[in-house]
Amino acid sequence: MTKAELFEQIKIKKSYLCVGLDTDIKKIPEHLLGLEDPIFEFNKAIIDATSEFCVSYKPNIAFYEALGPRGWESLRKTLDYIPKDCFSIADAKRGDIGNTSSLYARAFFDETSSGMSFDSVTVAPYMGADSVQPFLEFKNKWVILLALTSNVGSQDFEFSELSSGQKLFEKVLEKSQEWGNDENMMYVVGATQTESLVGIRKIVPEHFLLIPGVGAQGGSLEEVSKYGMNSTCGLLVNSSRAIIYASSGEDFAEKARIETQKVQAEMEICLDWI
Amino acid sequence: MTKAELFEQIKIKKSYLCVGLDTDIKKIPEHLLGLEDPIFEFNKAIIDATSEFCVSYKPNIAFYEALGPRGWESLRKTLDYIPKDCFSIADAKRGDIGNTSSLYARAFFDETSSGMSFDSVTVAPYMGADSVQPFLEFKNKWVILLALTSNVGSQDFEFSELSSGQKLFEKVLEKSQEWGNDENMMYVVGATQTESLVGIRKIVPEHFLLIPGVGAQGGSLEEVSKYGMNSTCGLLVNSSRAIIYASSGEDFAEKARIETQKVQAEMEICLDWI
Repeated sequence: MTKAELFEQIKIKKSYLCVGLDTDIKKIPEHLLGLEDPIFEFNKAIIDATSEFCVSYKPNIAFYEALGPRGWESLRKTLDYIPKDCFSIADAKRGDIGNTSSLYARAFFDETSSGMSFDSVTVAPYMGADSVQPFLEFKNKWVILLALTSNVGSQDFEFSELSSGQKLFEKVLEKSQEWGNDENMMYVVGATQTESLVGIRKIVPEHFLLIPGVGAQGGSLEEVSKYGMNSTCGLLVNSSRAIIYASSGEDFAEKARIETQKVQAEMEICLDWI
Repeated sequence: MTKAELFEQIKIKKSYLCVGLDTDIKKIPEHLLGLEDPIFEFNKAIIDATSEFCVSYKPNIAFYEALGPRGWESLRKTLDYIPKDCFSIADAKRGDIGNTSSLYARAFFDETSSGMSFDSVTVAPYMGADSVQPFLEFKNKWVILLALTSNVGSQDFEFSELSSGQKLFEKVLEKSQEWGNDENMMYVVGATQTESLVGIRKIVPEHFLLIPGVGAQGGSLEEVSKYGMNSTCGLLVNSSRAIIYASSGEDFAEKARIETQKVQAEMEICLDWI
């Protein structure tokens, strides 16, 4: 999916919501556990209930990987089921030396190899240029690079002050623009980091930002939108637990739909600002 | 496996070699491709041929993940086949927010969940404390944290100078000692970074270091051993491509055995230094 196509979907649905499919076998409603593939059945119901109100789905790969080969099969089926007009994100946080990152790119972008082809994959920047570039060689695919994450641990290294006066995450934003552009690269910026958004927009005014941390982690949608939006929206705001676990009963999909619609309504108001 | 048990194996085999199972379906000998699980058959033959001369095996997860669910099945079978007296490393370079890193820990350490239980997993430090700590909650398991990697991209961020005068990788070494110790944490230091080893040993004198980059990437075993060894050896030196692709013919396992024995003989000499 191109940047223009993504913005088109945002305008059609009046939403920049990404639903995080962090589907934990230990948390899904009990009545699903007897089915052949409970994880996929859960995701299928969530997608059916929410796709009208969101523009993107983001399975966090850890939740599938934790189940071994059968988890990967659930992931593959889930990706197949995500509507083609929704932007798919493999939240994998991968990254390795060049020849190895090429293999991770095959895993998430090359259907003939792995059976899966996501629109995008999240990548960790620590190992630098050659750990990121192999992902950028795939046409119409995106790298979503970790910049400033939503967790407490972001204080440990991401906020480290460099001798140049920059913070480490600012150097990541700046340096990585030598490798890609706003047509093939986005950045992860946690919703809990709104005070940094103004500065981030000075470095990457045109790029899309993937914003996790709204909902269970406590970030504010209004604040994020106020400081992060640009002329093509430029935001994909993710909510996982607050939507998919809105109810732990048989009405989980219905409750997820209500939550999603609520967020979409808020987003519709914010989109009037652009 | 405990640190004492690992050192015991090193003394028995007179080797601190780790064989990297970076098994690429596009590179293994043609005569294997007709078998039901070529990747596993290749690994099985390599393990049979080399286990006398090495103390560790390190499948790089990207190579398995690239093949989708069947790749994970090959990985699981490979881990089952690795002899129990060899230290197993899932070279996965994972890391995510706390609740998600717990799931990655399940994937590599919890056999009841994923079908696999490695001795250790490599972890990327960018996201800080809570991205690493969930892995440390598993008894007798190890985190191998990326410090200074062997690739060109290590120049981009790992070598960044902080306002404190430290390099970023030095801060990673120092800070992470608040989370673990030399009984449950090792560090990745590339063999191409020998000039940094003396300084690294000042920060982490007792920890084991996992050293990739000897062989195809050009690092020197003698140099690494001279500057990196401590009183319990403290080194696992990895070689992947130079061993597993020593021949592309039907004699691949035999040639791998010869290469492995060669490295072991060099290591036996270096071990006399301690």
